[in-house]
Amino acid sequence: MLVIGNHVSPYARKVLVALDLKGLDYEVDPIVPFYGTDAFTRVSPLRRIPVLIDGDLVLNDSTVICEYLDEAYPEPPLMPRSPADRARARWLEEYADSRLGDLIIWRLFYARIVGPRVFKTVPDEAAIAQVTDVELPAALDWIEARAPDEGFLFGNLCTADISYAAFFRNALLAGWRIDPARWPRTAAWVARVEAVPAFATSIRYEQAIVGARGHERADAMRAAGARISATSFGDATPKGSIMLR
Amino acid sequence: MLVIGNHVSPYARKVLVALDLKGLDYEVDPIVPFYGTDAFTRVSPLRRIPVLIDGDLVLNDSTVICEYLDEAYPEPPLMPRSPADRARARWLEEYADSRLGDLIIWRLFYARIVGPRVFKTVPDEAAIAQVTDVELPAALDWIEARAPDEGFLFGNLCTADISYAAFFRNALLAGWRIDPARWPRTAAWVARVEAVPAFATSIRYEQAIVGARGHERADAMRAAGARISATSFGDATPKGSIMLR
Repeated sequence: MLVIGNHVSPYARKVLVALDLKGLDYEVDPIVPFYGTDAFTRVSPLRRIPVLIDGDLVLNDSTVICEYLDEAYPEPPLMPRSPADRARARWLEEYADSRLGDLIIWRLFYARIVGPRVFKTVPDEAAIAQVTDVELPAALDWIEARAPDEGFLFGNLCTADISYAAFFRNALLAGWRIDPARWPRTAAWVARVEAVPAFATSIRYEQAIVGARGHERADAMRAAGARISATSFGDATPKGSIMLR
Repeated sequence: MLVIGNHVSPYARKVLVALDLKGLDYEVDPIVPFYGTDAFTRVSPLRRIPVLIDGDLVLNDSTVICEYLDEAYPEPPLMPRSPADRARARWLEEYADSRLGDLIIWRLFYARIVGPRVFKTVPDEAAIAQVTDVELPAALDWIEARAPDEGFLFGNLCTADISYAAFFRNALLAGWRIDPARWPRTAAWVARVEAVPAFATSIRYEQAIVGARGHERADAMRAAGARISATSFGDATPKGSIMLR
């Protein structure tokens, strides 16, 4: 299997952690969003990261990919068992993918980190403060009311747990940390997810990626233990738009 | 069960058709997007249409809701059987929900119909022409390559079939029709989905809704056969933003 995308994308990270939890073999093409070639557009018509290629099956969208991995490779399960809990897990994951995607990825991480580095944009500090001081705290209040007292959302670790912890890594990379005094259940829950070996591995790769320049990234990931694909869907320069999902 | 949303939303229609295909009893609260009360915000924190309330289970997001209905009420199934086909179906549905959602709902139906009526906006004809003459045809080319020769995408009707037919209803309401000379497989496939009794019923409700003024809508739907809930999450005036999903 091949995954296009790298651990700094919360959507790609969700897939990569799921693969590791299931003990599956895969290669990574750690392209940076925005840098996909025309061949990338053919396997990802919305130019989304991540893409999973498993034989002749080409899949887009991290939620779709994780549902596939859980059905095709059922052990250990990454979804709860009852239809109602599965639905709750899917909706919590969707809340993270949509709301935290908007707040943390586009309006914080992109505005603070990606835009300035890739497109030389200047951060709009007032807009960022609206996220960090108003809207993200309101989302955290909503999450805190749903965070588990102990363990994970539905007993065993599920895709939704991974998704929340992944977004908060990007918040951290952009300088925003969950205040454990204000959101103690969320902070403790996210720390438990981060301690799961497959998630801890993803943090090791994330650190290798953010510590390396573009053309050194594959080597840094290889040094950290990743299997990097021999060919790449990535280009040397940014090209067109991208959606993360 | 209660569904908040009405058949003119392609996302709500997907859920309503699924309920009818499974022969389930439900009431509808046919609120117009943008008109949700504070109580609506509590059951739909992203102010999304549709919402499904089944006992103490409150679900948002049409994809999540349809997955739930298919797991909790399995007959007839609305997903293919093999993990690979299920994944393909989910990805095709996601393409519709994202790409056709952007093109048909926001940049065509909203720009042409909803905005002018609800918010007194003036359609930007050049932007609409970019959708109808360039981007939507390109999406149709992508869809045409995947449309089934006969029957439905994966044998039995599945959620993805419903989703495509639902979006093209909104295109039609905004004046854009699939050209059967240019996209013959897609046009024939969508016509087959529209002929399925549960989908045909949704068109009857759609026509009742678009033919009535706001406060007459519930009566028009009731006259067409719908069970309308006694209380409503809808307000008399537009209030805040909404997301359709």
